[in-house]
Amino acid sequence: MYEFKIFNPLSQIEDELRKVEEIMESRLKRGAGFAREIGMHLLKSRGKRIRPALILFSTEAAGGDMEEAISFSAAVELLHTATLIHDDIVDKSPLRRGLPTINRKWGNDVSVLTGDFLFGEAFLLFVQQRNLSVVGLMANVVSKMCGAEIEQMSNLYNTEEKIEDYFGRVEGKTATFFSSCCQVGPIIAGASNEVTNSLASYGLNLGMAFQILDDVFDLIGDENTLGKPVGCDLMEGILTLPVLLLLEKEEYKDELCKIFSKKSITDSELTRIKELLYRESAFDKSFQFAKGFIEKAKSDLHILPDTRGKSALMKLADYMLERNF
Amino acid sequence: MYEFKIFNPLSQIEDELRKVEEIMESRLKRGAGFAREIGMHLLKSRGKRIRPALILFSTEAAGGDMEEAISFSAAVELLHTATLIHDDIVDKSPLRRGLPTINRKWGNDVSVLTGDFLFGEAFLLFVQQRNLSVVGLMANVVSKMCGAEIEQMSNLYNTEEKIEDYFGRVEGKTATFFSSCCQVGPIIAGASNEVTNSLASYGLNLGMAFQILDDVFDLIGDENTLGKPVGCDLMEGILTLPVLLLLEKEEYKDELCKIFSKKSITDSELTRIKELLYRESAFDKSFQFAKGFIEKAKSDLHILPDTRGKSALMKLADYMLERNF
Repeated sequence: MYEFKIFNPLSQIEDELRKVEEIMESRLKRGAGFAREIGMHLLKSRGKRIRPALILFSTEAAGGDMEEAISFSAAVELLHTATLIHDDIVDKSPLRRGLPTINRKWGNDVSVLTGDFLFGEAFLLFVQQRNLSVVGLMANVVSKMCGAEIEQMSNLYNTEEKIEDYFGRVEGKTATFFSSCCQVGPIIAGASNEVTNSLASYGLNLGMAFQILDDVFDLIGDENTLGKPVGCDLMEGILTLPVLLLLEKEEYKDELCKIFSKKSITDSELTRIKELLYRESAFDKSFQFAKGFIEKAKSDLHILPDTRGKSALMKLADYMLERNF
Repeated sequence: MYEFKIFNPLSQIEDELRKVEEIMESRLKRGAGFAREIGMHLLKSRGKRIRPALILFSTEAAGGDMEEAISFSAAVELLHTATLIHDDIVDKSPLRRGLPTINRKWGNDVSVLTGDFLFGEAFLLFVQQRNLSVVGLMANVVSKMCGAEIEQMSNLYNTEEKIEDYFGRVEGKTATFFSSCCQVGPIIAGASNEVTNSLASYGLNLGMAFQILDDVFDLIGDENTLGKPVGCDLMEGILTLPVLLLLEKEEYKDELCKIFSKKSITDSELTRIKELLYRESAFDKSFQFAKGFIEKAKSDLHILPDTRGKSALMKLADYMLERNF
């Protein structure tokens, strides 16, 4: 059973995160019928709350109002929850954070509507803060994220995909969202363009690393720590960085193309691909890419004055490389 | 084959509607891969554009800027398109406006993402107009609409449902959206509360009538004019006004409860239910409810000065009762 753990750098904003939970809880309990049941289910499967942490730390780093940051954090986490519910339909996932997914428990139809309902609730919360820039950032996140996911769906089993296309997808799927969260702080604080841009760039690079690592863990994790089956992405035809790196090796290209051209992968083929990935150090190489993005993220922060927020963002970046969930 | 027809009261805003189409087209062509294919598909199956008409007429009636109204109209129609795509997943519909639905042609997963992508694009367009009140109205529309649809899903085949619950659902599903469109005009124009409230109430009543008639047509239309199979709602277990009126008759209650308690309806049972609906004038009675809302809608406009916009809204209300699509 997957347990929620507040990871190290987040312990210093425990109070703020508790308030974020309270706002989310009051929103999730507003619905009737299935909506309420699902709200209670979602409250049981709390996530890592990385996006709220990015907003809270970037607000501290830019000197903004923390109460405002807390409201935005709740809205952002509701938006994130909405995208996860819809992702589970797309991925046909049976489990999320060790619990049955909404689509498994209530069906695709209820999942679609619940995700949409949370989109609406999230945007209502954004609007209540009366900050049009943040609403715009978040509308852009939704458009970019879904654009990237549709592109991903258009390229299942596509062995011709380039690594730069993959990076473009990762940017749309995850890094734009991280970057936008990091811009909330400086927007609230009315910070200079220089500060805003450095935090935006930090978030973008952190998000790139986060998604790359997520893609690696999909292949090397185990079901207990992942809270979902191993190799999910690959079994669905989504080729991520380790596999794309392997496809660059001429000696395996034919074998891999033959497997992928069937547009389905057997368990023994998955085992074979994982063997090749280890043999060719594709996981290590992917990890190095992630490490590169983490280094960039940290250097983005250099222009900021030393604050508790900045130091937490530095730690959060290092922590990414140590996570094993 | 269903043909797009600009219905009478809309002919006077043909130029504006053309500009709305152009904005939508440029947005729908922005995506790559499946997103672009789907965009082209959506452009082929143009809807009735009632929501843009409500914005344009309410802007004329309140004396607002028509260029601004055109941008909002495009955003609203994108939002509406997003909800239709997700509705088709929920309803498992094979056809919409005589063309295969996105879920039928590209699968549920792509449909979910395309709907979300259009949500994002719609909200980006709203934000570009830099009007926080309208963004708030539309976020509320999404939340209310999905809340009502989830409630509907929670009450399939529920023979204990009250007619007032049905009206509550209709308000959330459709009337809130209509009402919000009618508020865009007075918001743009900076109109008085009195004008805003009268247009909001007009939209609410018109939306109630529209959805009731839609529910009636689901049962009495034919596949060619509907562009989808007859009795879709009922076959899915959604009990609408005519059926709820029939359930009020003690003499049929047992027979109907027996059918609905199976949670599936055969073709011969559908025929039997339709026979009872005709016998008990349930369609006529539903039509009278719709007519009552239309009358209320028209009387809501009395306080407005006589303008082309007001006269078009009056005609639009009458036209609702004549539509046969």
